[in-house]
Amino acid sequence: MTDTHADTQLLCQRLQAIWHEQIPLSSAMQMQIADFDGEVLTTCASLAPNVNVHGTAFAGSLYAIQALTGWGMMHLQLKLNVLDASIVIASGQINYAQPVAEDIFVRCSFGQQHDEMTKLKTSGKGRFPLVCEVLLADGSRAGEFSGVYAVRLNR
Amino acid sequence: MTDTHADTQLLCQRLQAIWHEQIPLSSAMQMQIADFDGEVLTTCASLAPNVNVHGTAFAGSLYAIQALTGWGMMHLQLKLNVLDASIVIASGQINYAQPVAEDIFVRCSFGQQHDEMTKLKTSGKGRFPLVCEVLLADGSRAGEFSGVYAVRLNR
Repeated sequence: MTDTHADTQLLCQRLQAIWHEQIPLSSAMQMQIADFDGEVLTTCASLAPNVNVHGTAFAGSLYAIQALTGWGMMHLQLKLNVLDASIVIASGQINYAQPVAEDIFVRCSFGQQHDEMTKLKTSGKGRFPLVCEVLLADGSRAGEFSGVYAVRLNR
Repeated sequence: MTDTHADTQLLCQRLQAIWHEQIPLSSAMQMQIADFDGEVLTTCASLAPNVNVHGTAFAGSLYAIQALTGWGMMHLQLKLNVLDASIVIASGQINYAQPVAEDIFVRCSFGQQHDEMTKLKTSGKGRFPLVCEVLLADGSRAGEFSGVYAVRLNR
């Protein structure tokens, strides 16, 4: 295990503690961090607390889990850049390609947002578009979320 | 109290029971029906179970409450039309105009969707766009949700 890996593991533990202590719905959804390699964040949640009348994942849960995964990704990237900032989601959109009849796995990639990170450091403000997707066990995608996160440095 | 009012009250009681018994997250969010007059549905939820790290309403809760309010509106309209159907949200989008630092109130109007209801009755399928908004105590709006609900008659 490298130091970098140990660092990201610790950041993830702290992020999950923030979620469960300060956002009660993340506990109700049993949302957890499955993996983070510095660029890709994977979260998961059991189906049972997130089920709907059809026995599949509730659309509201799928949105909330993806929106919070994006927020978590933003939080982690700011920590990796040693920046103290406030993160707020400004807008979101989601499509539901197919029902999710299994535990929920969400993947978010940070991608090429170096210009916006530079702008944030110089101006104190940035807007980061992030995309998440729900991955099924068979490898297909059950839909996609995109959100815009408004970030402001705490000075 | 008219018979029609009594009917809509009963439909709302049954809808809320469906939510709380079959969608655990609606219970976790303490979501309730505040009012329904046949055309406008108002739902509410306490802030405490839906709070975020800023002490305001979690973006995921605001989406989930509005998406479920739209689903509930569709359910109620189908009941009023004596139609047995399956309702699935196909897509949703939301903007967050300002933070919500109080209990959450959501309003959804059914509007002029008579043509789509006629199409549903004849073809067995329909797609209903619905809009919800979060209302603050001072009368302003904290943001808007729009969703497309795919409805299919159970035959």
